[in-house]
Amino acid sequence: MWLQRELRLKARPRGFHLITDEVRERLPELAAIETGMLNVFIKHTSASLTINENADPTVRADFESYFSRAVPEDEPYYQHTLEGSDDLPAHLKASILGASVTIPITGGELNLGTWQGIYLCEHRNHGGARTVVITMQGEAGR
Amino acid sequence: MWLQRELRLKARPRGFHLITDEVRERLPELAAIETGMLNVFIKHTSASLTINENADPTVRADFESYFSRAVPEDEPYYQHTLEGSDDLPAHLKASILGASVTIPITGGELNLGTWQGIYLCEHRNHGGARTVVITMQGEAGR
Amino acid sequence: MWLQRELRLKARPRGFHLITDEVRERLPELAAIETGMLNVFIKHTSASLTINENADPTVRADFESYFSRAVPEDEPYYQHTLEGSDDLPAHLKASILGASVTIPITGGELNLGTWQGIYLCEHRNHGGARTVVITMQGEAGR
Repeated sequence: MWLQRELRLKARPRGFHLITDEVRERLPELAAIETGMLNVFIKHTSASLTINENADPTVRADFESYFSRAVPEDEPYYQHTLEGSDDLPAHLKASILGASVTIPITGGELNLGTWQGIYLCEHRNHGGARTVVITMQGEAGR
Repeated sequence: MWLQRELRLKARPRGFHLITDEVRERLPELAAIETGMLNVFIKHTSASLTINENADPTVRADFESYFSRAVPEDEPYYQHTLEGSDDLPAHLKASILGASVTIPITGGELNLGTWQGIYLCEHRNHGGARTVVITMQGEAGR
Repeated sequence: MWLQRELRLKARPRGFHLITDEVRERLPELAAIETGMLNVFIKHTSASLTINENADPTVRADFESYFSRAVPEDEPYYQHTLEGSDDLPAHLKASILGASVTIPITGGELNLGTWQGIYLCEHRNHGGARTVVITMQGEAGR
């Protein structure tokens, strides 16, 4: 059984944002899968997806602080500067964090740990709405 | 053909640890898959999985040295500090390295390169036992 | 439907190289898949794969500049130094960027964003030819 769907995620400010509930709500068919996998893929090169702590919002704030220091803007050696100071660092962060997450499905649910959630990582100052492709496959329960 | 199994990995010290043999031993069904994929997913936000050199242990020691410098503890701008100095850096490392690895299966074996192994990356000082979900799918040989 | 194939990628200089067309050309069967997933896995520990901007070559040049600063050579604390100054940093970059990419297939095409391409990330000065395993699965159109 395969299911694929594109999701439009509304524009969010630069930073890290939990989208687990939004993904789940758009996937009612999940309940029918006994064993499977979910892949969420972002169709952009200046935003990314990762899995991390779903509770304390200071984790997401610290992610933004850390990554914006680890991948600084306006380095004198950057050549790709025409699209703004935040553009090349956004591409770098996108590759460090990755364009997709893959999550096991077990008994009709995403088999995440208690504290795990899916983050949309918005690396641009004004990134706009973002599109993700959700691909689910698996076998139905008996 | 789908197979899914949770594996409890014993507590290990902070650092990088080869778990390829442990994963293989818990997957005798691998031998029956002619073409497929294996996904290993860690259900935690302060430990991660990656694929790297399976031979010289100094690679794993240098990984710990590098990542603990690249993601330092006790930065004055961190807000998420209540769970200890190693906690927020552990979350950051977990997202840089990733929560899962996906490996092709060919002819009943993991189709890894000669020098590749699966690392459990333990980012906490006392992380305890860790749980991974192994999902395998593929088609049987003829 | 499963399809798996090993691809030998010719030796490239250290840096980041677009290989999307090369992957597509070697996968004529893609056209028959209505809904599916493609996984590209690199069988090496000092080269990696990522998805990023497919247009302006300065992005790829800046990636090389950034990662070679973020993961410097000849750090005094490195122990794994026998295979050359570029070896341990190559392993570190390989794990930061990752050994595989997973891309949705929709209507017989890779469902990439307009600006997305697959990068081969060559982290060694003389890495030689590289082998990737391509695994495709999905269901045919009706």
